[in-house]
Amino acid sequence: MNQIITFGEVMMRLSPSGNRKFIQASHLEFYFGGTELNVGLSIAHFGGNVKHITCLSDDFIGDTALSYLNKFDLDTTAVIRSKRPLGVYFLEVGAVMRPSSISYNRSHSAFSEIEPSMVNWDAALENGSWFHWTGITPALTKGSFETLKEGLKLAREKGMQVSADPTYRSGLWNYGVDPKDALTELLHCSTVFIGGINEMNEVLGTNFGYSNDEFIEASKLIIEKFPSIVKVFDKIRTSINSSWHKIRARMWNGKKFYETQDFDITHIVDRIGTGDAFAAGLIYGLQHFKDTKSMEFASAACALKHTYVGDVNYATIDEVMRIVEGNLTGRFNR
Amino acid sequence: MNQIITFGEVMMRLSPSGNRKFIQASHLEFYFGGTELNVGLSIAHFGGNVKHITCLSDDFIGDTALSYLNKFDLDTTAVIRSKRPLGVYFLEVGAVMRPSSISYNRSHSAFSEIEPSMVNWDAALENGSWFHWTGITPALTKGSFETLKEGLKLAREKGMQVSADPTYRSGLWNYGVDPKDALTELLHCSTVFIGGINEMNEVLGTNFGYSNDEFIEASKLIIEKFPSIVKVFDKIRTSINSSWHKIRARMWNGKKFYETQDFDITHIVDRIGTGDAFAAGLIYGLQHFKDTKSMEFASAACALKHTYVGDVNYATIDEVMRIVEGNLTGRFNR
Amino acid sequence: MNQIITFGEVMMRLSPSGNRKFIQASHLEFYFGGTELNVGLSIAHFGGNVKHITCLSDDFIGDTALSYLNKFDLDTTAVIRSKRPLGVYFLEVGAVMRPSSISYNRSHSAFSEIEPSMVNWDAALENGSWFHWTGITPALTKGSFETLKEGLKLAREKGMQVSADPTYRSGLWNYGVDPKDALTELLHCSTVFIGGINEMNEVLGTNFGYSNDEFIEASKLIIEKFPSIVKVFDKIRTSINSSWHKIRARMWNGKKFYETQDFDITHIVDRIGTGDAFAAGLIYGLQHFKDTKSMEFASAACALKHTYVGDVNYATIDEVMRIVEGNLTGRFNR
Amino acid sequence: MNQIITFGEVMMRLSPSGNRKFIQASHLEFYFGGTELNVGLSIAHFGGNVKHITCLSDDFIGDTALSYLNKFDLDTTAVIRSKRPLGVYFLEVGAVMRPSSISYNRSHSAFSEIEPSMVNWDAALENGSWFHWTGITPALTKGSFETLKEGLKLAREKGMQVSADPTYRSGLWNYGVDPKDALTELLHCSTVFIGGINEMNEVLGTNFGYSNDEFIEASKLIIEKFPSIVKVFDKIRTSINSSWHKIRARMWNGKKFYETQDFDITHIVDRIGTGDAFAAGLIYGLQHFKDTKSMEFASAACALKHTYVGDVNYATIDEVMRIVEGNLTGRFNR
Amino acid sequence: MNQIITFGEVMMRLSPSGNRKFIQASHLEFYFGGTELNVGLSIAHFGGNVKHITCLSDDFIGDTALSYLNKFDLDTTAVIRSKRPLGVYFLEVGAVMRPSSISYNRSHSAFSEIEPSMVNWDAALENGSWFHWTGITPALTKGSFETLKEGLKLAREKGMQVSADPTYRSGLWNYGVDPKDALTELLHCSTVFIGGINEMNEVLGTNFGYSNDEFIEASKLIIEKFPSIVKVFDKIRTSINSSWHKIRARMWNGKKFYETQDFDITHIVDRIGTGDAFAAGLIYGLQHFKDTKSMEFASAACALKHTYVGDVNYATIDEVMRIVEGNLTGRFNR
Amino acid sequence: MNQIITFGEVMMRLSPSGNRKFIQASHLEFYFGGTELNVGLSIAHFGGNVKHITCLSDDFIGDTALSYLNKFDLDTTAVIRSKRPLGVYFLEVGAVMRPSSISYNRSHSAFSEIEPSMVNWDAALENGSWFHWTGITPALTKGSFETLKEGLKLAREKGMQVSADPTYRSGLWNYGVDPKDALTELLHCSTVFIGGINEMNEVLGTNFGYSNDEFIEASKLIIEKFPSIVKVFDKIRTSINSSWHKIRARMWNGKKFYETQDFDITHIVDRIGTGDAFAAGLIYGLQHFKDTKSMEFASAACALKHTYVGDVNYATIDEVMRIVEGNLTGRFNR
Repeated sequence: MNQIITFGEVMMRLSPSGNRKFIQASHLEFYFGGTELNVGLSIAHFGGNVKHITCLSDDFIGDTALSYLNKFDLDTTAVIRSKRPLGVYFLEVGAVMRPSSISYNRSHSAFSEIEPSMVNWDAALENGSWFHWTGITPALTKGSFETLKEGLKLAREKGMQVSADPTYRSGLWNYGVDPKDALTELLHCSTVFIGGINEMNEVLGTNFGYSNDEFIEASKLIIEKFPSIVKVFDKIRTSINSSWHKIRARMWNGKKFYETQDFDITHIVDRIGTGDAFAAGLIYGLQHFKDTKSMEFASAACALKHTYVGDVNYATIDEVMRIVEGNLTGRFNR
Repeated sequence: MNQIITFGEVMMRLSPSGNRKFIQASHLEFYFGGTELNVGLSIAHFGGNVKHITCLSDDFIGDTALSYLNKFDLDTTAVIRSKRPLGVYFLEVGAVMRPSSISYNRSHSAFSEIEPSMVNWDAALENGSWFHWTGITPALTKGSFETLKEGLKLAREKGMQVSADPTYRSGLWNYGVDPKDALTELLHCSTVFIGGINEMNEVLGTNFGYSNDEFIEASKLIIEKFPSIVKVFDKIRTSINSSWHKIRARMWNGKKFYETQDFDITHIVDRIGTGDAFAAGLIYGLQHFKDTKSMEFASAACALKHTYVGDVNYATIDEVMRIVEGNLTGRFNR
Repeated sequence: MNQIITFGEVMMRLSPSGNRKFIQASHLEFYFGGTELNVGLSIAHFGGNVKHITCLSDDFIGDTALSYLNKFDLDTTAVIRSKRPLGVYFLEVGAVMRPSSISYNRSHSAFSEIEPSMVNWDAALENGSWFHWTGITPALTKGSFETLKEGLKLAREKGMQVSADPTYRSGLWNYGVDPKDALTELLHCSTVFIGGINEMNEVLGTNFGYSNDEFIEASKLIIEKFPSIVKVFDKIRTSINSSWHKIRARMWNGKKFYETQDFDITHIVDRIGTGDAFAAGLIYGLQHFKDTKSMEFASAACALKHTYVGDVNYATIDEVMRIVEGNLTGRFNR
Repeated sequence: MNQIITFGEVMMRLSPSGNRKFIQASHLEFYFGGTELNVGLSIAHFGGNVKHITCLSDDFIGDTALSYLNKFDLDTTAVIRSKRPLGVYFLEVGAVMRPSSISYNRSHSAFSEIEPSMVNWDAALENGSWFHWTGITPALTKGSFETLKEGLKLAREKGMQVSADPTYRSGLWNYGVDPKDALTELLHCSTVFIGGINEMNEVLGTNFGYSNDEFIEASKLIIEKFPSIVKVFDKIRTSINSSWHKIRARMWNGKKFYETQDFDITHIVDRIGTGDAFAAGLIYGLQHFKDTKSMEFASAACALKHTYVGDVNYATIDEVMRIVEGNLTGRFNR
Repeated sequence: MNQIITFGEVMMRLSPSGNRKFIQASHLEFYFGGTELNVGLSIAHFGGNVKHITCLSDDFIGDTALSYLNKFDLDTTAVIRSKRPLGVYFLEVGAVMRPSSISYNRSHSAFSEIEPSMVNWDAALENGSWFHWTGITPALTKGSFETLKEGLKLAREKGMQVSADPTYRSGLWNYGVDPKDALTELLHCSTVFIGGINEMNEVLGTNFGYSNDEFIEASKLIIEKFPSIVKVFDKIRTSINSSWHKIRARMWNGKKFYETQDFDITHIVDRIGTGDAFAAGLIYGLQHFKDTKSMEFASAACALKHTYVGDVNYATIDEVMRIVEGNLTGRFNR
Repeated sequence: MNQIITFGEVMMRLSPSGNRKFIQASHLEFYFGGTELNVGLSIAHFGGNVKHITCLSDDFIGDTALSYLNKFDLDTTAVIRSKRPLGVYFLEVGAVMRPSSISYNRSHSAFSEIEPSMVNWDAALENGSWFHWTGITPALTKGSFETLKEGLKLAREKGMQVSADPTYRSGLWNYGVDPKDALTELLHCSTVFIGGINEMNEVLGTNFGYSNDEFIEASKLIIEKFPSIVKVFDKIRTSINSSWHKIRARMWNGKKFYETQDFDITHIVDRIGTGDAFAAGLIYGLQHFKDTKSMEFASAACALKHTYVGDVNYATIDEVMRIVEGNLTGRFNR
């Protein structure tokens, strides 16, 4: 009935421990991740009922990925399997002024070969009330774009809420479609826009700056251009260096602008998936709280994610709420 | 002749490495700890002659705990063994705004079944000159409370100094005794009070705030109510978040108020046992220095403990003294 | 409809890696296990639909145990939570002539406090067709014995198959019930007996030896004394030393004696849970194969389990069948 | 002048430690390997001058692979780099009757896109005296087959020795060429044949069995069909199970049949790359010893490789010679 | 009163885990060892009162070594400290036909600079009843030889038993003394000879073979030449390969020859220190049992040591006795 | 032609992971380092052609060190081997106010026995254009001082640039030479001086303070006293504590004073080798950039080194240039 649907690639993440480079390492830690999966897992930790739809390799690596989804109690009944290998990404974690580096091995992965005929969207969305998508999926292959489009159309027909995180990654989009056209089509099936000025400029063809006033103006244009969209949320990251960030959020919900305080993240543990934690907090929040509190919840969730190793936010509702309520000094839970 | 006596439970501490949660882990680090043991071990690292009295399980886990005490040259001749298992605690280490979490498995442990008849206090205190106790021991079971009380009474009869750290932990005290009554009885056998406003309010039934003036007033009441007590020491922790604290100390020794500078602990390695390191520094200091220097020594020891993994302060006298003398920039020792 | 029900304690298993003793270790590996859970997980790896019923601690350790059950897709809807801690067991793995050693911390665990009123057996068995129990559960506490008994009675009323593995562990049974009486009551609710001569002698009050003839005679007595039981299976282990065992199986199914060949397990990886793998193989086999093939399947499953670290048999149907078919030389799967 | 040339794919090997499955693991060990590279590295450990020609990814993974080749002092001046990712293979190490399992992610790797135009064979073979190839390279893609063919032709023109290990892997050869045709072409450029009855049957279209007589007959046919080939070597593996093998070698050098004794490898550490160690031993041996001693050297090298973790044989000349001389009891080197 | 004295160098042992070579490793395990220390620690595990006399470096490495001795409750009151570094040895563990390799960094270590004036033998031997020495100590430096000699002379004056294990290591003895002369002098202060035919030939200048008859003849000559010696014990190792040994013992006690059965050690965990475990078993046994049982105890202790990682035998009296009594199948201890 | 020559000891570095002390550890990480090697390796990462000249032990530890140099493509043709062991140093990494501690075992190492006759300087410097030396080498032994001196003289004869980093370490210089005299001799063969006020005071016999004016005055004196020296560079470290430093650089190049901005290194990963990274950046920079940019490059390289574990700066030219260009916020490289 109330199921949240996420759809996207699952990749194996491989990285040396700590700040080691591969050239120094002999052991790697591995996790599974993917922007939409991260959102789904985070909502599951809040207690949400989440179904993740993806295509995994039909080998022991795919088995391991599947067990990872099951471990956190995602609905995996719509997962499909393929003869192709699972996508992999390699991560070197930076520190201070050294940036983290990522190298991908995903271009012929199990998920990238997905086609609309492989997903039974009717069955998959049966109990769905919310669908979340990101700009990574349409950027991979024509098949993944078309499959997503078909799912979104059905979701809107069924009256589901649709949150869009149209992250634009320039290294992708290699299959001959114009990103702006593709994202435009998908945003017309969406109801909540999660993204910054860059994404707004990309889909609007504008050139707005980062000020709050420009954010509001851009948001209004988004809502005007995509009438199904009613709210726009943005997360602002201020990086002192790789190890120390500040996070805040702002929104325009058609009527009101609101901006949260900065969270000061003085000792980052893992920066991957923090945007996904924000989206997850927002999706959960918008179903339970007012818009402003949703945004505070989302930015607290995002801040907390920086303290967990791996791609996923492990925080529970209670743990996020404690942050929202201002308990930032980290006293022991006994 | 000059032996320092500590008495209390030894538990196995289990935690994933780094900031991992158990749900992410497959390996755990283990240590042994316990608030009174931590004090004893820390004093042993200063070169003190320390005897720890406890009850360990009579299995290979108890053997391992015993070897841990021997490793640091504690006098273990008064350790007793029991058929019951050793207490265990599980720790998830937080970061930034995420608090650390602890879960205990101690309620039917070897130590919790201790009874006065099991400890030969005459023999155990034979060479004792100082006895240190904390509010954890009387909070566990009637047996541990009674056993401690018997030891303290004999200690005072023998003219030993007794330091009290009446930490109040609300999750304990489940065996039907009123904490205030029990602590009052034990404080009447004590000569040095180590504790903050919360503990003073608890035993005085007052409601003092955190200001220095109120601290002095409360300390005077402590000394008035418990005539054996002649000095009161307090450690003040200012938490920016889980990873960044400041520490300072203050005291009222019946005549004089004194307060140290803050130590700024910008990158905490392990926060467990830092209060115990303070108590150990104080106990050592009061036997070798004036009160004010004792307090500086104690707060330097406490600050240093934040840089060691595990429950124990490994700092030697020389290492603490270097901090007391203001060498805070961490130049190499070669 | 076709669900297999397992009921029993889940414990955290802690052990140093390799053949280290705790006294040499600073890191531990952890797993979750419990004889009935091991059976359930193994059947789940064969593709079976399994529900495990247990009581877990209501803390992050219990959360981790729950995620472990979910990971392998067990039905966890009937799991209950308690304020008491999860049971723990410590394992030192032997080698050659050195035996492995186990120390338990389970006597006041979450599961041991279970009472019949805490399990809704009607709902729990709704889709059940097979119930598996072992002699560990009734040996823990009166509550666990009574809860199991209630479940078994309902299972038989519903016409479910019931497999009994009445393993007798002398260190348990401390709550004042006679093991023979308790097991007798439970065996009267069972249809398949899995156990060796020792267990048969225990419940029959006989003194049979290990020969096949005596096994047949004892089996006949079991079937006579417990009319609901129709088949008896036994697993025979020949230990050259801690690192090298041989395994075979035998049965009496009321009509026919059958005995398998020995599997030669020359380099044991982990011996824990191998009996559970046998039981799981049998339960799966009896639902899909003839009795003799079931036994071959079970003993191949048991042999394979010796090659996996942890309590659980990870072998799939195909992997077991390859062994049954005689592919023992371990050629690569590519 | 005297350089040995190896040409083939370098892959990253990822595996859990010990006998763990991926589903149980959180950490992986990584190595680099590839059948021809393994041969080259092994010869380098014997002190040979080896150049390995390959195509690596142009990212930090490729950098790490390159540093791995440099570490063992291979000549890497002919290594080329590509925008595509490095191939990866995943390994689960079996034990006793459980086979090891491998899953590949190599189909669109950096090496698989190689084309003849990318290698400057004239420069690459400038100092070459021996070229080694295997049946994996022509099985990958048309480009890798053509590139190898071009190199072999030049090698023969220059009068270099060419050793062929035409291992047939049925999971490959997916690009539309008949394996028999391709291997035939390449064998016509070869002077030493290293392979078993299966490979001989594959290229001859015959159906010989494993007896020595049939081996001799098949070898004669090989030499007849491929006049450039003058010697045939075979390695015979007898597997008791995954953990315990026996190895011996046999040859037909156009005049004489010779067979070595069995080496009994009672506790296999890592079975990967043992065939490559045999080939390396043979290539080194044929340049320094008579044929029979070469074969003894090769089979001792092969046996020793089973005792090293990873894909590579680390044994030096001296270490292999000690085995050849019959020192099998493993007395300490101090 | 009843203290056993051991005297000798303590070194740090560094080795990669498993069978890795240093060239493959990035992490090392470390232990402390030394042949005489290993004997002392093993006797301490049997419950013996042992004092180890040595010279450690005066840095944090020496502190760590000292804590290691304390951990197992050795009497460390006679340990001295020096400005020179602790000796180190590096170990690569072989497998099957690959031998283990050791490289030493000990020639200017703290212990090697010891001089008679540095040890207060009167105080050190105050409670001593047994002194154990090996051929390593006199082989290091003139100072260590002289220091040992002084201790042995006093031990004999005090009527202590002295066991000699005159292991001859040809890589040592570089300081200009003839090994035979030095060992002869020391054996004249000894009462029990532990050593094989090689050692007997070395000190006798004979050429006996390995048969029992020759062992008896050689033993008689030892007893004749060194009248203080009354018993000769030998341990016979049959190596199938690095991973699989057999062990038995034999003796001539002046009256009687006796030989034990072989222990079959099919899966060696760590071979280092197994000779020391034999000596320790013998020293303990000769104080508690008849000669023949002492030898059985010693060879069971030796066999068990092969199952522990590190230099030390962790077996307790009970654990050894179980082996002596024939319990070799490694059934669980619960 | 354009080869950079470094000459100095290579040591094995052993340290527990994280901030552990040896007394808490059972595993160590190991690296190889040495101040001149660190400089050479860092320049090799910039793409420079570097030859390192040293003496390694002739055992598997020396082999491992050699493979480490090869791994990063240093020219190792002038490496010599010795029967003596490789030097070792032990490191405990501090945190916050706790300093790191180092203990050396190098006094009789392979390198310390080097003599001028052991290095063929003509061949070694054949393609050299730059020679870098530090004050560690002449401080070790007379042999290492003399060998260095001979190399420097030839380097100057050949017109090579010579950079001097006359670090003064008071724990060394134990062989009877006056440091000031030795350094003076070597500085007369140098063209670039890298060092702080302390080093200048040491060789000038002055007493300058840390101000820029005093730095300029001291630099002028250096250039006056050592006419071959034309430029002086200094790196200024401001330590908040062990975990948080600031770095900047200043220079006097005979004409002009220049000072860089501070880099704020808020979360130090590894502080070892950061001075070497500065020297390497300077040497590379002076060959490619103007003096001021060289200094900016050097101080960016130094700052980046604080983010890599181990002794070596892994940063590439591009990575350093990004810092020089002001990209300090650590955005991902994808």
